[in-house]
Amino acid sequence: MKLLRVGAPGQERPALRTDDGRLLDLSSMTPDIDGAFLAAGGVDRARAAVEAGTLTELPTEGLRVGAPVARPGKVVCVGLNYRDHAAETGADIPSRPVIFMKDPSTVVGPYDEVLIPRGSVKTDWEVELAVVIGRRARYLEEPEDAAEVIAGYTVSHDVSEREFQLEYSPQWDLGKSCETFNPLGPWLVTADEIGDPQNLELRLSVNGVKRQHGHTRDMIFPVHHVVAYLSRYMVLNPGDVINTGTPAGVALGLPGTPFLRPGDTVELEIDGLGGQRQTFGHA
Amino acid sequence: MKLLRVGAPGQERPALRTDDGRLLDLSSMTPDIDGAFLAAGGVDRARAAVEAGTLTELPTEGLRVGAPVARPGKVVCVGLNYRDHAAETGADIPSRPVIFMKDPSTVVGPYDEVLIPRGSVKTDWEVELAVVIGRRARYLEEPEDAAEVIAGYTVSHDVSEREFQLEYSPQWDLGKSCETFNPLGPWLVTADEIGDPQNLELRLSVNGVKRQHGHTRDMIFPVHHVVAYLSRYMVLNPGDVINTGTPAGVALGLPGTPFLRPGDTVELEIDGLGGQRQTFGHA
Repeated sequence: MKLLRVGAPGQERPALRTDDGRLLDLSSMTPDIDGAFLAAGGVDRARAAVEAGTLTELPTEGLRVGAPVARPGKVVCVGLNYRDHAAETGADIPSRPVIFMKDPSTVVGPYDEVLIPRGSVKTDWEVELAVVIGRRARYLEEPEDAAEVIAGYTVSHDVSEREFQLEYSPQWDLGKSCETFNPLGPWLVTADEIGDPQNLELRLSVNGVKRQHGHTRDMIFPVHHVVAYLSRYMVLNPGDVINTGTPAGVALGLPGTPFLRPGDTVELEIDGLGGQRQTFGHA
Repeated sequence: MKLLRVGAPGQERPALRTDDGRLLDLSSMTPDIDGAFLAAGGVDRARAAVEAGTLTELPTEGLRVGAPVARPGKVVCVGLNYRDHAAETGADIPSRPVIFMKDPSTVVGPYDEVLIPRGSVKTDWEVELAVVIGRRARYLEEPEDAAEVIAGYTVSHDVSEREFQLEYSPQWDLGKSCETFNPLGPWLVTADEIGDPQNLELRLSVNGVKRQHGHTRDMIFPVHHVVAYLSRYMVLNPGDVINTGTPAGVALGLPGTPFLRPGDTVELEIDGLGGQRQTFGHA
């Protein structure tokens, strides 16, 4: 099942996308798609409502798509989680997941404008598979326990400013938390529909030039391992988002480091999760 | 003015503490003390209500005190912001603020139990002055611009697990984001009542033994500098919390590294902001 939020920023309404591309309005069921909705079995209730045929159809034309989860409590990120990306940045293969955070208010819709920060000359792209938590998790013992706390998956663009991230201090969060730096969506696709999260291709292009083309089988720490690992150090709450890392092909690792400039357009997609497209502007 | 939240976890009601120690109920004015309340001029409205004498008194006995701000959108931290603490940890004096984040769901009340994570042998204390943002801030040009976006100040305990923070990866957030790791409060004291934030003493003791005794004049990057700096890299939103760093005296820097164990009691206080007391338990 594909859940999404449509409408103007801050006024999105919850919706469901059918297999034939229609949008069904969920606002009679829930005010929003958020942690409370996911924790209260909202996915199952939405499924039941589709089967009962009680949902009304929304017009799709001209509708802005927002992030598929409202107000994530946190956005946790795994750094250097693909061997080829670790290599291109000159980093060793980590022996444990490298964990950092983005400001959750960076989350925007998948087609929204992304702002290059004032003074930035090293704004970079990163396509990532994002996990959306559906159930509170603490101290999961095994990766096998992770499946039951995952609501689903979505596409995440972990936009990064390399000078702020890597040159200003040893801590990365500053260069990961700039305004609009986390386009998310278009859909929250439930875990049952995705099946094996290690069997997905990720692609990203800039101005039509292919830049990233990876596969989740190349993750150093697979999705279920990451979720169980995190749960032993922090509480994962419904609506939390985990960005699971990016494969090779970021500007930082390319000849000539072709960082993003205002007017550039980035398109990204992941098998089964749909695509994003952002044009970059000035902050 | 001193604002606080009292009641069971998740069911706190907003209140105001008068100079003579009475509690006045703010729940006729606002459902909570949060970003929306601060953004909508809640502090001024509360002040007017006190003067008009329209607020009813709450019983104080047996009331749990929660964190003074509900659901911060983010908790941003400054690392190594006191010269003596940088020295005790063996770090160089940073040339720019070192910025990292805590999971906002770590925020608990000032007298709540703090849980030592499973497997932890290096849980440590850090008393810090916390800033609470009252107005949206982006791209402040000068430290002088910071005053108008600060709602007030409170005491923050930036509990830290040093093995998770420093030994598992180069990124600190993992060891800063464990369950219950950010006691906050007791009060949000409005900025006008504090005056100069660089003129405050901070004290922390463990089981009655004084461990930290610092002064905010010794910050490397003063409060207004930190707020203006952050606003150039991320949007600061009403209700966001900034932990401005800890002075010397943490377990990591003491002979024998006397890290916290279940049953230990930590007391901390800052001039004008009141005190906290936590007993540590098992997660």
